[in-house]
Amino acid sequence: MYKIEEIDGGVCASEGFYADGVSAGLKPNKQKDMAFIYSDELCEIASVFTTNKMTAAPIRHFREKGEFKTNFILINSKNANAMTGKAGIQDIKEILSTLPKEIKEPIMSSTGVIGVRLPKEKILSGVKLFNLSKRDSDAASKAIMTTDKFSKQKAYKVTLCDGKSFHIGAIAKGAGMINPAMATMLCFVTTDAKVSSSEMQELLDEVTHITFNAASVDGDTSTNDTVLLLSNANSEVYDKEAFRDALQKIMLFLAKEMVRDGEGATKLVTYNVKGAKNNEEAEIVAKALSNSLLVKTALYGEDPNWGRIASTVGASGVECDEQTLSIYFDDLCVYETGINKFDEDMEQAAAKIMRQKSFTISCDLGLKKGSFTSYGCDLGYEYVKINADYRT
Amino acid sequence: MYKIEEIDGGVCASEGFYADGVSAGLKPNKQKDMAFIYSDELCEIASVFTTNKMTAAPIRHFREKGEFKTNFILINSKNANAMTGKAGIQDIKEILSTLPKEIKEPIMSSTGVIGVRLPKEKILSGVKLFNLSKRDSDAASKAIMTTDKFSKQKAYKVTLCDGKSFHIGAIAKGAGMINPAMATMLCFVTTDAKVSSSEMQELLDEVTHITFNAASVDGDTSTNDTVLLLSNANSEVYDKEAFRDALQKIMLFLAKEMVRDGEGATKLVTYNVKGAKNNEEAEIVAKALSNSLLVKTALYGEDPNWGRIASTVGASGVECDEQTLSIYFDDLCVYETGINKFDEDMEQAAAKIMRQKSFTISCDLGLKKGSFTSYGCDLGYEYVKINADYRT
Repeated sequence: MYKIEEIDGGVCASEGFYADGVSAGLKPNKQKDMAFIYSDELCEIASVFTTNKMTAAPIRHFREKGEFKTNFILINSKNANAMTGKAGIQDIKEILSTLPKEIKEPIMSSTGVIGVRLPKEKILSGVKLFNLSKRDSDAASKAIMTTDKFSKQKAYKVTLCDGKSFHIGAIAKGAGMINPAMATMLCFVTTDAKVSSSEMQELLDEVTHITFNAASVDGDTSTNDTVLLLSNANSEVYDKEAFRDALQKIMLFLAKEMVRDGEGATKLVTYNVKGAKNNEEAEIVAKALSNSLLVKTALYGEDPNWGRIASTVGASGVECDEQTLSIYFDDLCVYETGINKFDEDMEQAAAKIMRQKSFTISCDLGLKKGSFTSYGCDLGYEYVKINADYRT
Repeated sequence: MYKIEEIDGGVCASEGFYADGVSAGLKPNKQKDMAFIYSDELCEIASVFTTNKMTAAPIRHFREKGEFKTNFILINSKNANAMTGKAGIQDIKEILSTLPKEIKEPIMSSTGVIGVRLPKEKILSGVKLFNLSKRDSDAASKAIMTTDKFSKQKAYKVTLCDGKSFHIGAIAKGAGMINPAMATMLCFVTTDAKVSSSEMQELLDEVTHITFNAASVDGDTSTNDTVLLLSNANSEVYDKEAFRDALQKIMLFLAKEMVRDGEGATKLVTYNVKGAKNNEEAEIVAKALSNSLLVKTALYGEDPNWGRIASTVGASGVECDEQTLSIYFDDLCVYETGINKFDEDMEQAAAKIMRQKSFTISCDLGLKKGSFTSYGCDLGYEYVKINADYRT
């Protein structure tokens, strides 16, 4: 038994964590573009990075360090420090070497344009603006935004049955979930729970799979995608089940926020797939649906075109049969085990469901017990506008 | 030695073939929506169909027949006869049973909306308008269009060194190559070459792989995708090399036409990938590039964002390394084995290349000899408009 309460404070809700965002002139108009997360004690680290082979310099720098603890993450937006070779890692080392002595084994994280060296002078001037006693998670969450329309953070207090409690907090950025192929997502989670690094890693892998990775296509990730979980054990409290639950809650919230903020998105759609041969095949179908351009444009047009959904299921390559397939918009069954139930009334009812800001499309493949849930959004004119213009 | 000359006539350029397109009221405003291809002699058949598991009724009907020869294909647009179960096949049988006696083992092909039964009365009224002595390939090519902006046909006369000749002609439809996932492509090729059905099948498989399938994603096809090759052997002439060459020429032309006509497309881009570990990995990269939403929108924005290209290569999952990769826009090398050559002059030169209607993006992975060429287009506002509205 435990209780999870939403609280304020983002990454600073965890005891002993500090954060802020400043403007270093990477973005125009004095927008915040650099952030830090600092802990007064060294932290255990768990991490999940992109599977992209063109791994950005910050991730290569992290991996080069081997096993270590840290108390500091430096984050910049507007420049991904990707495709910058050894010079990209050298730039990171030079920047991090200027940090004050209380900072141990600092790491860096970047998001933005690929193929351009970090503007070191600007970043060094930003570092000078950092005040390690600030606890402004909100400013940090704003500083890491790129095409995001809104900043993303969340925190929970977890109270166990003996009355003792720990905290978990996070900030995230990412708004390109329409095609997650190259829209960098960053997420930084802090906790004062007393959790071992190996157990943190196990739980982070498990939870990432059903949250952030349920909103993206397998193996198709940006050069910079990063999820970092830091624990300073400040609370001395821990319970595995409660921690997993809170971690899943916070990461699922942020994953859905990213989808909802998908470039040009107007709708958040949950795809429930069940009845597949196994969970892996259900996952393939769920991700095919949330990633299909033709499904996404039908959502934008609020067109209850269940044929595109059926075709996407069929194209995904998994075992399926039109005679056992059923398709639902929320609770409305539009196609049931080979029988098309669609008429004009049903079309209007389905269209009404699609006019909601958020709804569920379910596919029951009618075979075995495999299931998976993914999250997607629609694709409209705004997506084209944002992405045709992003770099320049 | 042989000579291939372009000639008029489309599918009717091959001796003994007839075709026409009529209006049966499936499309509004008396647009042509039904076509036939007829041969005065029975034809050998080679076929390539969709890998989608939700196979449309016309394809299931074809497969049920086993081995056979035919002299007639009936094609309709506006309705795909997909997700229509056994009733969909029964509808086809009823329609084909009304054809005149000179027609043997007729087959049907459909494209359009999924999940709606064929409007049999309209189609039967269309069949009555067919005149088997018409040789109007142009009308047939127009009748099979859906969102196509222009009709597609081509024909060649192939003359061997002994002066004897055969013909090959084709019509095709398909305009959704931006995401080939569910944009039905149909292609009907006729020839009077005297080729065995087994050799035709071998060549059709081989040529489809590097033409139509080079403009689409592996395993990700519509419910109705169809390529049919019919030979009536009327010329009594055949040469394997010349035939393969002409078949490749005609199918590559039509594949490029489909890409050029991609929904909302303004550019045709050829992706040359070389230096991959093997041809299979080169193919994965080439298709990842031609299918990437972020590359497509950068093309539309005429933004020489080579970082998105590098990231797509990395996300494709094949063996690659930023230190051995090189990227070219036409002959302009923007990134060479780890060295970013991009400056303001080069950016302007690259942007100029991108303003062309058609250009080449090349990636040399710098590893081994694997190569593959794919074809893609950009994605603009028009794509969203077409696909948000398609069904209604």
